[in-house]
Amino acid sequence: MTDTAFDVLGIGNAIVDVIAETTDAFLDEQKLDKGIMRLIDEDEAARLYGVMGPGIEVSGGSAANTIAGVAALGGRANFIGRVRDDELGDVFAHDIRAQGVSFASAQAKDGPLTARCLVLVTPDAQRTMNTYLGACIQLSARDVDRDAIAASRAVYLEGYLWDAPEGPAIFAEAAHAAAAAGREVAMTLSDPFCVDRYRDDFLAFIREHVDILFANEIEIASLYQVESFEEAARRSSEDVRIAALTRSEKGSVIVAGSGRTVIGAHPTRVVDTTGAGDLYAAGFLYGYATGASLERAGRIGSVCAGEIISHIGARPRANLRTLIAEQLG
Amino acid sequence: MTDTAFDVLGIGNAIVDVIAETTDAFLDEQKLDKGIMRLIDEDEAARLYGVMGPGIEVSGGSAANTIAGVAALGGRANFIGRVRDDELGDVFAHDIRAQGVSFASAQAKDGPLTARCLVLVTPDAQRTMNTYLGACIQLSARDVDRDAIAASRAVYLEGYLWDAPEGPAIFAEAAHAAAAAGREVAMTLSDPFCVDRYRDDFLAFIREHVDILFANEIEIASLYQVESFEEAARRSSEDVRIAALTRSEKGSVIVAGSGRTVIGAHPTRVVDTTGAGDLYAAGFLYGYATGASLERAGRIGSVCAGEIISHIGARPRANLRTLIAEQLG
Repeated sequence: MTDTAFDVLGIGNAIVDVIAETTDAFLDEQKLDKGIMRLIDEDEAARLYGVMGPGIEVSGGSAANTIAGVAALGGRANFIGRVRDDELGDVFAHDIRAQGVSFASAQAKDGPLTARCLVLVTPDAQRTMNTYLGACIQLSARDVDRDAIAASRAVYLEGYLWDAPEGPAIFAEAAHAAAAAGREVAMTLSDPFCVDRYRDDFLAFIREHVDILFANEIEIASLYQVESFEEAARRSSEDVRIAALTRSEKGSVIVAGSGRTVIGAHPTRVVDTTGAGDLYAAGFLYGYATGASLERAGRIGSVCAGEIISHIGARPRANLRTLIAEQLG
Repeated sequence: MTDTAFDVLGIGNAIVDVIAETTDAFLDEQKLDKGIMRLIDEDEAARLYGVMGPGIEVSGGSAANTIAGVAALGGRANFIGRVRDDELGDVFAHDIRAQGVSFASAQAKDGPLTARCLVLVTPDAQRTMNTYLGACIQLSARDVDRDAIAASRAVYLEGYLWDAPEGPAIFAEAAHAAAAAGREVAMTLSDPFCVDRYRDDFLAFIREHVDILFANEIEIASLYQVESFEEAARRSSEDVRIAALTRSEKGSVIVAGSGRTVIGAHPTRVVDTTGAGDLYAAGFLYGYATGASLERAGRIGSVCAGEIISHIGARPRANLRTLIAEQLG
């Protein structure tokens, strides 16, 4: 690999999470399906916020969480995403930069407000997400900085981006820029419902452009419309060089050709599962970009996921670098 | 006591806390005195925010935390404070109402932004607070709703209010309304430096109007400019009917005339001491307003303080009502 200024550039929705603890009864009453992400409009965001409990605001966004995690591990990280020049936009921009991430995107002076995700955490630590995409909806292929992609070992794309009108164009632009510069393309499937919405497009993009695919077992089974995890893993091995597949408390499996590396979950007290997949990807990408073996990269991912689910919010609180040194040496 | 619509009405600064974990080295570098609250202007707020780490936004404000705690205990709570019609103002208004507090104050359409407090938490769980008062500075005696005071068993005033130009007028108006309606006046000294700024005014107000005084051992010693806690306790017994004096890990002492009720601290793992005094006051006021003995009121305060210091942020996360039932029966 030639030297680059950054280890990973993430492109994703720039979101501030509004996290509130709730009950199963409240989810039932609001007819919300536990554990999934749904998109809501501004009116529904205002309505739901009005009836939900007191919240905590923490910067979020799936790829943004991953990139913040890469930086917290000591990796050189860059991020592209769209916020407005409002207070939540200030919060998002501050937090990602304060984590050591380069975030060059200017805050938009008009258009929808900065995105927010109303995250409802039940006593079983599951999170039910209600996302108002706001300013993210106007992220465009023109925001994809080809020089920034050339300056990173890998570009990391979140499937959720496909929900914006220019999502497919953003993916295409990023993939072409990466190919032109000889950089790798990593992608996360994001969410089972996101896979349902864009399955054929995702499959076509993955087969043509993706080197490293992140998914949980439900998402990967949904992508290939198969019932067994083994079958989904086998199918993914035909489409991408590396598939890092997470299985909650069963840990993860890294698929590379006919090889399978099984990584145990990191034992922890689970408080809020928000960001588990995002931080697994952070650890894996950091390890991979800095030359670790697939097994060690997976173990770093597992420790990072364990840290994030031990507290409220999807941005790391512990010093991940120290944590990895302590846990893995 | 005649029946009232509310147990407690709080009047205080309406603030959103921006909480970041930090190091002692950062406090040194920024020349910040650990553990105290200082007032900062908008420029300093922007500068410090720019150099501090990623944050978590949680509604705060000293009396507001207390009132949120009263509501979380099942008390009937009301609050008066001033925010703007900006996003942090929305957050403050949402969170306090979602906790079950009545908050009738309209969000101001102009003037300074909603107040924020940059809270830096060191590994020893101490919090160093930097407050930009923003919209709070324009709270005025006209905002003191005499009917709301008449409708509450007690009005609770924070010493910090004195930092706003109309602070003294707000205190006077609240005290006169309470006297006219036969309601009790409770006050917290807030902070040792706040006591330094307004010692003579505080003493005059306390002697004339206050029934229940809250302070920690440093604040009460500073108020009377004495060195021993015993002497400070004795002096407070001459000035107020009840003084609830907190002593960190040594628990608290409730002074009523020649009586002393000693309450142990509630053992817990300390993560962030922000709000310990606020929630002690919440528990005590709730107990007192609902007819508990001074000892039981103090023990409720102690359990609430223990809950708040076990996590980041000064608003309760646990169901305080259940917690009290479990711990105290």
